[in-house]
Amino acid sequence: MSEKNRRLLLETFENPHPKRDYTIEIVAPEFTSVCPITGQPDFAVLTLTYTADAKCVELKSFKLYLQSFRQAGIFYEDVTNCILDDLVSVLAPRTMKLVAAFTPRGGISSTITAIHEASR
Amino acid sequence: MSEKNRRLLLETFENPHPKRDYTIEIVAPEFTSVCPITGQPDFAVLTLTYTADAKCVELKSFKLYLQSFRQAGIFYEDVTNCILDDLVSVLAPRTMKLVAAFTPRGGISSTITAIHEASR
Amino acid sequence: MSEKNRRLLLETFENPHPKRDYTIEIVAPEFTSVCPITGQPDFAVLTLTYTADAKCVELKSFKLYLQSFRQAGIFYEDVTNCILDDLVSVLAPRTMKLVAAFTPRGGISSTITAIHEASR
Amino acid sequence: MSEKNRRLLLETFENPHPKRDYTIEIVAPEFTSVCPITGQPDFAVLTLTYTADAKCVELKSFKLYLQSFRQAGIFYEDVTNCILDDLVSVLAPRTMKLVAAFTPRGGISSTITAIHEASR
Amino acid sequence: MSEKNRRLLLETFENPHPKRDYTIEIVAPEFTSVCPITGQPDFAVLTLTYTADAKCVELKSFKLYLQSFRQAGIFYEDVTNCILDDLVSVLAPRTMKLVAAFTPRGGISSTITAIHEASR
Amino acid sequence: MSEKNRRLLLETFENPHPKRDYTIEIVAPEFTSVCPITGQPDFAVLTLTYTADAKCVELKSFKLYLQSFRQAGIFYEDVTNCILDDLVSVLAPRTMKLVAAFTPRGGISSTITAIHEASR
Amino acid sequence: MSEKNRRLLLETFENPHPKRDYTIEIVAPEFTSVCPITGQPDFAVLTLTYTADAKCVELKSFKLYLQSFRQAGIFYEDVTNCILDDLVSVLAPRTMKLVAAFTPRGGISSTITAIHEASR
Amino acid sequence: MSEKNRRLLLETFENPHPKRDYTIEIVAPEFTSVCPITGQPDFAVLTLTYTADAKCVELKSFKLYLQSFRQAGIFYEDVTNCILDDLVSVLAPRTMKLVAAFTPRGGISSTITAIHEASR
Amino acid sequence: MSEKNRRLLLETFENPHPKRDYTIEIVAPEFTSVCPITGQPDFAVLTLTYTADAKCVELKSFKLYLQSFRQAGIFYEDVTNCILDDLVSVLAPRTMKLVAAFTPRGGISSTITAIHEASR
Amino acid sequence: MSEKNRRLLLETFENPHPKRDYTIEIVAPEFTSVCPITGQPDFAVLTLTYTADAKCVELKSFKLYLQSFRQAGIFYEDVTNCILDDLVSVLAPRTMKLVAAFTPRGGISSTITAIHEASR
Repeated sequence: MSEKNRRLLLETFENPHPKRDYTIEIVAPEFTSVCPITGQPDFAVLTLTYTADAKCVELKSFKLYLQSFRQAGIFYEDVTNCILDDLVSVLAPRTMKLVAAFTPRGGISSTITAIHEASR
Repeated sequence: MSEKNRRLLLETFENPHPKRDYTIEIVAPEFTSVCPITGQPDFAVLTLTYTADAKCVELKSFKLYLQSFRQAGIFYEDVTNCILDDLVSVLAPRTMKLVAAFTPRGGISSTITAIHEASR
Repeated sequence: MSEKNRRLLLETFENPHPKRDYTIEIVAPEFTSVCPITGQPDFAVLTLTYTADAKCVELKSFKLYLQSFRQAGIFYEDVTNCILDDLVSVLAPRTMKLVAAFTPRGGISSTITAIHEASR
Repeated sequence: MSEKNRRLLLETFENPHPKRDYTIEIVAPEFTSVCPITGQPDFAVLTLTYTADAKCVELKSFKLYLQSFRQAGIFYEDVTNCILDDLVSVLAPRTMKLVAAFTPRGGISSTITAIHEASR
Repeated sequence: MSEKNRRLLLETFENPHPKRDYTIEIVAPEFTSVCPITGQPDFAVLTLTYTADAKCVELKSFKLYLQSFRQAGIFYEDVTNCILDDLVSVLAPRTMKLVAAFTPRGGISSTITAIHEASR
Repeated sequence: MSEKNRRLLLETFENPHPKRDYTIEIVAPEFTSVCPITGQPDFAVLTLTYTADAKCVELKSFKLYLQSFRQAGIFYEDVTNCILDDLVSVLAPRTMKLVAAFTPRGGISSTITAIHEASR
Repeated sequence: MSEKNRRLLLETFENPHPKRDYTIEIVAPEFTSVCPITGQPDFAVLTLTYTADAKCVELKSFKLYLQSFRQAGIFYEDVTNCILDDLVSVLAPRTMKLVAAFTPRGGISSTITAIHEASR
Repeated sequence: MSEKNRRLLLETFENPHPKRDYTIEIVAPEFTSVCPITGQPDFAVLTLTYTADAKCVELKSFKLYLQSFRQAGIFYEDVTNCILDDLVSVLAPRTMKLVAAFTPRGGISSTITAIHEASR
Repeated sequence: MSEKNRRLLLETFENPHPKRDYTIEIVAPEFTSVCPITGQPDFAVLTLTYTADAKCVELKSFKLYLQSFRQAGIFYEDVTNCILDDLVSVLAPRTMKLVAAFTPRGGISSTITAIHEASR
Repeated sequence: MSEKNRRLLLETFENPHPKRDYTIEIVAPEFTSVCPITGQPDFAVLTLTYTADAKCVELKSFKLYLQSFRQAGIFYEDVTNCILDDLVSVLAPRTMKLVAAFTPRGGISSTITAIHEASR
């Protein structure tokens, strides 16, 4: 799936309380993609935390967006930053953080944390 | 139930130690409302933390107030902010925070955190 | 028991290292008092944290002091602040914090946190 | 809802491996009903364990069946045995056990365990 | 309170499903009595498990019955067997087990387990 | 992938201690397949326990075998029994048990347990 | 301390309910003795479980008895069996089990379990 | 190291209470060997449980014996049975069980359990 | 043992990386001393955290130093500050913190935390 | 293995998102080296956290690099700082932290934490 088509999967709804800087945390423990070198599946728990501006992400569309990576070959560091970029592009949040905690490979586990701060 | 009638359920008592800025935390693990789109029940653990000014919320009335959402169709982000607004309106606290941790739907769980700071 | 008599239960010993601002934490998980409205027993875990000045509280006397509330009818917010006031009055600590975590009633649990800072 | 209508909510599918006595465990942590005396909501985690004969219970219909108790006034002991009776009536399982672990009321929690053995 | 009066506190209701040998477990984590020698309070978690015959114990009356020990001076082994005897006398259950797990004293904790089997 | 081709993925090695009835437990927490109705991914932790006769399953081939279900549409009860059948067919173990613990869907989680006993 | 003097430390009280075979479990997490070879202290959690006949062990005397090993040089296997022998000698219990779980030494931890069954 | 030399590392001491069938459990969480195919290190927690007859294994010698596998290339199933065989050969225990819980490889973890019963 | 002799037990080694302000944390869960009033043993988990300057504490000597308190009669607050003073005197660290978490007495547990900051 | 050769084991790949200061955490729970004095093996969980500049460390090469310490005799404080130095030298990260949590020896466990900040 092209990067542009994937981003189109993300749907939004209007922030019902835009005057307050409140926080939305979404934990998606069933993320899976594929290692681009070995072809082996990778698994991660994603934790997204953001303060919405005008728009919030619709949960079912977010789930389908994440499922679009199921057969995608992509590295840990890359997929974490790409998901953050897609969400920032679609939601324009006030702040957003994404933590991707991957399960162990060769006895070693990795967690990638990327943060977006809106330029004010 | 109308928004106004719901707010009337909240009873208060006089803060017994108003000279000290102490903190009251109330955990209500049995909150349930209904998804306005699917009609499916939602479940959350609510954690309210506040510093009272003149008034404290009476616990039994708070429980009945929360139970008034049992058949209400309302979104996560909305109900969290509405409960905070109701409590701020009735108690006029010095500070108040509400965390609503909803159980997973489609494998994905959400936590909404909203904070009120009194304008001094 | 009168408030004055209760305070007399608290015994102290001289701070053996007054030159250093070290911290003493005391956890008393078996506190129980009575709800002044329903007459039902309440239960809490108390966590006292303080930096002593000239005096430290003697542990056995603190236990007996807490036991004096066993049949006392008193609200959560009140008893937490009263115990803090008694300890501040007897010890004159540099700083002191009391956290009282009450067990659930009607499915809802409460934790009261009160802090004393010495006026310097 | 009448008892008969509620039972009609339960849908089944054909056991795909009836020659083997294998076990199906279903955990439903979001069960809620109402106390018939106080009108207060009750909450329980239900754990159903059974060995199917010809039929298995369809999960979504089981969820809707459980949701039909949301406004029903019924005691702990009764609801546990009634759900077991309904499932036995619809599935005719080889064996079936239902454990209902209710959350605390007045500081006291209850767990009801009922077992059905097919008469052979 | 006399032993006879205490037993009168226990109320029952008719077993709604007497044909089935199902199990009722009740956990009461806030039991407290007094050591008859030192006068110090004791604390225990009580776990009652029984199969009812004609009668079940009513939960609120069980709570009040347990609270009647709040000022009673009685040893661990004695109170556990006495509570079991009272419940057996009032309910005539098919089987009944009581586990009383007392909190540590002098660094040592005790758990008493007593079982009643109906003579058939 | 055809059922026959999938079974060919399983490789074995000779049991190094066939005289002793020892137990091999293998936990595979990253199993994923697809719901044949909704097309949504399912996730499970598989726990295989067996006593080998002449042959043991080679771990890497078992991992690849499990990965062959990544895009397969198959129900919980079916996939658990099919994997057990494949392993029994290839290994002819003395005993074998497979437990598949699936993550929650609609707030409800399922665990399927199937056992094979060699006919002696 | 001689073995005979140590045994004299154990005091008993009359079993208040000798007609019932109930169980008494005592957990003593602060046992410490000394390794007879290296002179290094050993630490263990002792769990004693018994069914009393005519006599129960008094808890404070049991604590003092255990403290008498504080400077004693004795091996794991020996001390566990000796404590069991002393208790059996003094209490003549219907059954008794002692579990001694020692903390790690050289990265390796040991647990000794000894059981006494009365010869009837 | 030859199998014979390795076995010589195991030292024993006389069972101090041979008349009683008591149990000795030894947990060694730092076992490591090498995969004979990939050369990669393996890690396991070993739990040995036995009832001694005339001899007990000396702990320090057991630790050194286990360390002798640090550079040895050997499979999970093999090393578990070999260690059990060595211990049975040296100690001639009444019963003995060895559980070897290996850490995950490729997301999959294995536990091998082997039991020896003395032929009487 | 005199205070001076005890301090002589502490041995040091040269900090291998003095240019970097790195942190060393040492957890000693088997500390025991004696209450100077009751003669009863006390038990604590000590957690030492420091940034070395020229010298680090040698672990085995630290263990023997802590064991020298085994028969010493000393209060919680005193022993925590004394150990910190001894270590500061011998190591002259850049910063050092000692946390002593004592096990419960009379149902109440205490934790003492003392910090040393080098005067620069 | 010489220090220079060991460092050559570390391979890197280009940071795919160098414009963002995101964090990479790698947990390696199977680190083992040897005590240079006693020859006994040491075990640690390593947690590396860094913000990459131009280069990221390749995980498999990092695993092999860590395995090169398997037979190396080196102290806790030294190995932690050496690994940090090697990674800083090869990656030139913006910031990097290494935490090495060693398992207990003589009942005492150590954790070393070293931090590198790039000079800007």
